[in-house]
Amino acid sequence: MIEERLRDLGIELPAAPKALGSYVPWLKMDKLLFLSGLLPMINGQLRYQGRVGEDVSLEQAMDAARIITINALSILKDSLGSLDKVRQCVKLSGYVSSSEGFTEQPRVLNAASDLLVGIFGNRGRHVRVAVGVSVLPLNSPLEIDFIFEVEE
Amino acid sequence: MIEERLRDLGIELPAAPKALGSYVPWLKMDKLLFLSGLLPMINGQLRYQGRVGEDVSLEQAMDAARIITINALSILKDSLGSLDKVRQCVKLSGYVSSSEGFTEQPRVLNAASDLLVGIFGNRGRHVRVAVGVSVLPLNSPLEIDFIFEVEE
Amino acid sequence: MIEERLRDLGIELPAAPKALGSYVPWLKMDKLLFLSGLLPMINGQLRYQGRVGEDVSLEQAMDAARIITINALSILKDSLGSLDKVRQCVKLSGYVSSSEGFTEQPRVLNAASDLLVGIFGNRGRHVRVAVGVSVLPLNSPLEIDFIFEVEE
Repeated sequence: MIEERLRDLGIELPAAPKALGSYVPWLKMDKLLFLSGLLPMINGQLRYQGRVGEDVSLEQAMDAARIITINALSILKDSLGSLDKVRQCVKLSGYVSSSEGFTEQPRVLNAASDLLVGIFGNRGRHVRVAVGVSVLPLNSPLEIDFIFEVEE
Repeated sequence: MIEERLRDLGIELPAAPKALGSYVPWLKMDKLLFLSGLLPMINGQLRYQGRVGEDVSLEQAMDAARIITINALSILKDSLGSLDKVRQCVKLSGYVSSSEGFTEQPRVLNAASDLLVGIFGNRGRHVRVAVGVSVLPLNSPLEIDFIFEVEE
Repeated sequence: MIEERLRDLGIELPAAPKALGSYVPWLKMDKLLFLSGLLPMINGQLRYQGRVGEDVSLEQAMDAARIITINALSILKDSLGSLDKVRQCVKLSGYVSSSEGFTEQPRVLNAASDLLVGIFGNRGRHVRVAVGVSVLPLNSPLEIDFIFEVEE
C-alpha cells in the first residue's frame, strides 16, 4: 500500500546506501528502528556539497532533504521487507551545514517532513530537532537521522 | 502536586508553543514522550537572538534555558493533562549557538537541569548532551530537545 | 567474559568520569541505558583540546574517541555491575569540534566503533550519527553519547 503510494508520487527507491564507516545502517530493538545519519547520496555520490546559504541554496538543501528521506525509505524497505510495517515515524534529527547567517534550518527539514507525511499520512508525523552546524562528513550540506516505530 | 510545586516556585505555564514547521511538538510511544527541539520563545517571539559569548551573555543564555524548560512543561501538560504523569525526565540534548571561544555549554544547560530537579526532584534527573553549534533556527542562542518517561 | 576480553586487549577501566553539571552520567529505563555526552577525560583532565584539523590531528582525535569509549565502559560497569549485561550497543552520536575544512568525522568515530566491535563482537554493532560542530564544552575536540540495550 505504501509502495503503491510511492509509485503514485513517482518515487523510485534506489539501492539502500552503504555505511561510511564501521557501523550499521539500521538497528532494530523491539519495535524501535534506528537509522544511522544519512547524507544526500545518489549512487554513492553526494548530490550537493558545501554550506547552505553559501555554496548550496535553500532549494538545493530542500532537494537534499528529499534525497535523504528516499534513502531512508530504501533502508526501511531493506530492513523490514515492506514499508507497510512502518507504524510511525517517531523522530528526525536534522543537521544543516550552515553559513553564519543562515537560520532557516526548519524550512530545509520541512522538505523531509512533508514528504514523510505525504507518503505515510498521520503515521509520517514526527517530532523533530533542526540545528545548524559548521561542517559535515564529506562536506555534505545536510545529515538526518531517523527513528521509526515498526511492527515487531 | 507538581503544579502546586510550580505555584510555590512562582512559575506560570504559558500556552504551549507551536511547531515551526511540518512536525508535531510531541509524540508519545508507549511510555516514552519525545518533544521536538524547543527555542526560548515567549508569546511566539524569541526572547534572545545571536550567539552566546558574543551577542548573548552566559546569564541570558541560562535564562533562555529556563524559558525553554517552562515551554517544555507547557507541552507536557498539554499532552498528558497533568504533570503528575511524568515519571522521569530521561534525556536533554542542548545545542548552544556559541562564539568560537565559548566553552561553557554545560553551565548554560545547568539552568535547565537545575530547574527540572527543583520541580520534579529525583524524577527530574536526566542524562544530558551539550554541544556548541554555529547557528540555530531564527538565530536562537539555544535549542533543547527532551525525552520523558510518562505513565502509559 | 567481556572483562577478560578487555584484559586481552590490554584495556584497564579507569574510575567512571563524573558529570560536568547537574545531570547524571547514566539513566536506565527498562532495558535502555542512556549515557550522558562524554569527553576524552583522563583522571579528570581533558587529554586533548581544540578543533580537529587545526589544533588536534586526525590520529589524536581517534585516540580521543578510544578514551571516550573506555570511559563509557567504566560507566557501564559502574551502572550494571558487569559488562556481560550489555546486550547491544544501540547508538552513538558523535560531535567532532572541526576546523572549517575538516570533513572526516566518520574516520574519527570509527575508532570508537571499531573498539566496541573489537570488545563486544556483534553486540558492539550500532547505528551512528557523526557531525562537525564549531566548539564543545571545555574546548574538547570530541563528545560522544551512547545508548545501550542491557539486561533488565
